Amino acid sequence: MEYALANRNAQDYLATNEDRILEGLKEFLRIPSISTLPAHEQDMKKAAAYLASRLRELGFPVVKVIPTAGHPLVFADSDPPANNDTTATPHPLTVLIYGHYDVQPVDPLGEWETPPFEPVVREDKIYARGASDDKGPVWMHLAAIEALRETLGQLPLRFKFMIEGEEEISSPHLYTYLPEAHDELDCDVVVISDTTMYAPGIPSICSGLRGIFAGQIDISGPVHDLHSGIYGGAVANPIHVLAKLLASFHDDDGKVNIPGFYDPVRPISEAEREAWARLPFSEGELCQETGVPALAGEHGFTPLERMWGRPTLEVNGIWGGFQGEGSKTIIPSSAHAKITCRLVPDQDPAEIGRLIEKAIETMLPKSVRYRFTAMEGGHPWTTSPDHPFLQAAAAALEATFAAPPVFIRMGGSIPVVSALANQLHKPIVLLGFSLPSEKFHAPNEHFHLANMRTGMRTLVDYWLRLTAMQTKEV
Amino acid sequence: MEYALANRNAQDYLATNEDRILEGLKEFLRIPSISTLPAHEQDMKKAAAYLASRLRELGFPVVKVIPTAGHPLVFADSDPPANNDTTATPHPLTVLIYGHYDVQPVDPLGEWETPPFEPVVREDKIYARGASDDKGPVWMHLAAIEALRETLGQLPLRFKFMIEGEEEISSPHLYTYLPEAHDELDCDVVVISDTTMYAPGIPSICSGLRGIFAGQIDISGPVHDLHSGIYGGAVANPIHVLAKLLASFHDDDGKVNIPGFYDPVRPISEAEREAWARLPFSEGELCQETGVPALAGEHGFTPLERMWGRPTLEVNGIWGGFQGEGSKTIIPSSAHAKITCRLVPDQDPAEIGRLIEKAIETMLPKSVRYRFTAMEGGHPWTTSPDHPFLQAAAAALEATFAAPPVFIRMGGSIPVVSALANQLHKPIVLLGFSLPSEKFHAPNEHFHLANMRTGMRTLVDYWLRLTAMQTKEV
Repeated sequence: MEYALANRNAQDYLATNEDRILEGLKEFLRIPSISTLPAHEQDMKKAAAYLASRLRELGFPVVKVIPTAGHPLVFADSDPPANNDTTATPHPLTVLIYGHYDVQPVDPLGEWETPPFEPVVREDKIYARGASDDKGPVWMHLAAIEALRETLGQLPLRFKFMIEGEEEISSPHLYTYLPEAHDELDCDVVVISDTTMYAPGIPSICSGLRGIFAGQIDISGPVHDLHSGIYGGAVANPIHVLAKLLASFHDDDGKVNIPGFYDPVRPISEAEREAWARLPFSEGELCQETGVPALAGEHGFTPLERMWGRPTLEVNGIWGGFQGEGSKTIIPSSAHAKITCRLVPDQDPAEIGRLIEKAIETMLPKSVRYRFTAMEGGHPWTTSPDHPFLQAAAAALEATFAAPPVFIRMGGSIPVVSALANQLHKPIVLLGFSLPSEKFHAPNEHFHLANMRTGMRTLVDYWLRLTAMQTKEV
Repeated sequence: MEYALANRNAQDYLATNEDRILEGLKEFLRIPSISTLPAHEQDMKKAAAYLASRLRELGFPVVKVIPTAGHPLVFADSDPPANNDTTATPHPLTVLIYGHYDVQPVDPLGEWETPPFEPVVREDKIYARGASDDKGPVWMHLAAIEALRETLGQLPLRFKFMIEGEEEISSPHLYTYLPEAHDELDCDVVVISDTTMYAPGIPSICSGLRGIFAGQIDISGPVHDLHSGIYGGAVANPIHVLAKLLASFHDDDGKVNIPGFYDPVRPISEAEREAWARLPFSEGELCQETGVPALAGEHGFTPLERMWGRPTLEVNGIWGGFQGEGSKTIIPSSAHAKITCRLVPDQDPAEIGRLIEKAIETMLPKSVRYRFTAMEGGHPWTTSPDHPFLQAAAAALEATFAAPPVFIRMGGSIPVVSALANQLHKPIVLLGFSLPSEKFHAPNEHFHLANMRTGMRTLVDYWLRLTAMQTKEV
């Protein structure tokens, strides 16, 4: 079937069936699948079962609810499409769609205008926990596939789904599943809708995420707190030593001052710098949003470059000695700091940990002892916007949003993405339709139905473009 | 009466009456006068009354138990001695003796070998809470005065006592009493036995105490903790700013790096440096005692000089951001530090606070806000070992201990001393007979009876020397 006609038919189908699609999403949103809370274990199973039954309804011959030591994974495979259509090929493209059915807790409950698990539409937005993160986007994928199947009679590509129930708790059991399921998950492209658009009206593809290294520094001096009068002047104060150490971690230009830290850093390409410079961005608005009097950071880079394309070292917490009311005249016996680095290609979390420990060793005086603990890590991830599968997604976005899409990056880390990249070695397309303002992880989470509609249309268009690419039709 | 004879008689009296004197001290020690605990309010009154009745027995015509908003003060005045003795003058020297009858709490009670308020003598040491701090030393003063009165028939000097019940809780009501009682407390010399000897066998006079300035630094950045991935690189981290600030407070030579900080510092005299250098001191022992791998501090000074004669700036506590298990990827909204400075003459606590605030102001970037709170202060105090009243005390020590006394300083702050110095403008003699090992403030507090005996003899000798100084007899 011709691309344009198939697209028009599927778009019409989505418009005609919108109410029913939304009812199905509401049903999904009513299940309080909070992965952090043991009390919701049955709800987790219910949500997984609901997804599995929906995938079976959509004709997926392989649908599995895979138990783990935590919450179950839902896996589905549409199998190769039958070879009785002009769009079919002997080796059809395979798309793996990743998403998650678990949601964040709802505290503080009193701040919700309507109950978090009683979805309601107000001003063309659907309000419920999970509406935008990530049940709404998962549901869009199911609806787009339904539209294609109903209008084409069969699926034009091979689709696989991997929907997990532990994204909000750092996916502990996905990582044991991934290597075991290598063949099962094999595909040509991974598509994930769990990121945000840059801003309303600006359709976006995320082409990079920062990695992370987390560690803890413990400095110890005297065996117990000492009287600062009796001993002050003769014994090193662990807080002073820690402060000097942490201060040494950044130079006056805001650069991380750990020898070797930047050696593997890939520069931000000129094309990306130019593209990011064209994005609407206001330093004043960022100050207002965060409540800081002025921005700060590495000299020679714009705020977006610093947040998306440059590594950081942040002290996330510090403690030592007396923290109560008034004063206590002690030299504390120890001082502690939690640090995390956000990493960019090609920094390696383990190597960054070694560099930091080396810097500590070099810097510390003999008058204290130290311990450095590397706690966790995740690799940075980027993909080239030039890849044809990303360009096809961009074309689908432009066609449906009637606005040029932007390739953005995100400063955070989604460990699943780099894990999938490292396991499957396939392009990953982060095609998000949520907005940063939609209060995921907060009370009154919602999802703009306009973006949901345009998003579903984008997905239909995208799958048909990929189909056409196989036959060189578009 | 001739000095030597009077001294011999009084010493004999002390030896003969030792058991009775010790029984009186035990009675005093049985009163659980713990000033911190409201449950002991009646015990505080009982201890004050016990002292008052003892002073009346000693013939003090003026004995007052002065109520305060807290625990009572005991004041006594022997009045000028009658003018019928060769040692008497129309204006006899007046000695003001300060001490305290309150004691520290006794926790952990289980670690006491015998109950804290059931005094017992073992191996020539008396064990009880308050034995060495400060009931034992107060009792020595009463016994010395009894010996003189009983052997001379009257007191050779005018004695005043001011014994408070709130020393262990920072003397809150003494400071309101002092200015009101200026005339009542007028004297020629203040003598306090509430410090320690440098070491066993080394009689000591403390000729200096450090002052103190206490403050708090609060650095605030974003209005709430921020996601370190999303914002990291663009927003200043208050912990980084605080670490840089605190690191800037000391230079690489261990000197305090606050402009103006050392300007008023009086150098340690050559005589004191030489005297301190002759004291037995082991860096290795100090390391072992505190558990540090090596000493630290200001270059160019010995550890004793750094602890006694040089000012410090210590961070007593620090906190900000996440302190729990694992990691939390935030840029914290604030970071905080408690600081205290130990001060030496002629540093002024209020001025030091202003200098620190100025240094903070100069140093902090625009990307954060700060608050600096000056919390409390106490002036440093020193006295010249050359003063005749100190030299007389030294001579009395040498005569009775049969060892040359040392003039030491203490690195801590005893705010009462500088308060008395500033109120009365009279020399203060810190004549301590306790030992650092006697576990004041800890379980199994005790007082060496040998030092108590030699101490009482020293006091008798000292008063007779002061008497003789008036008549130029010695």
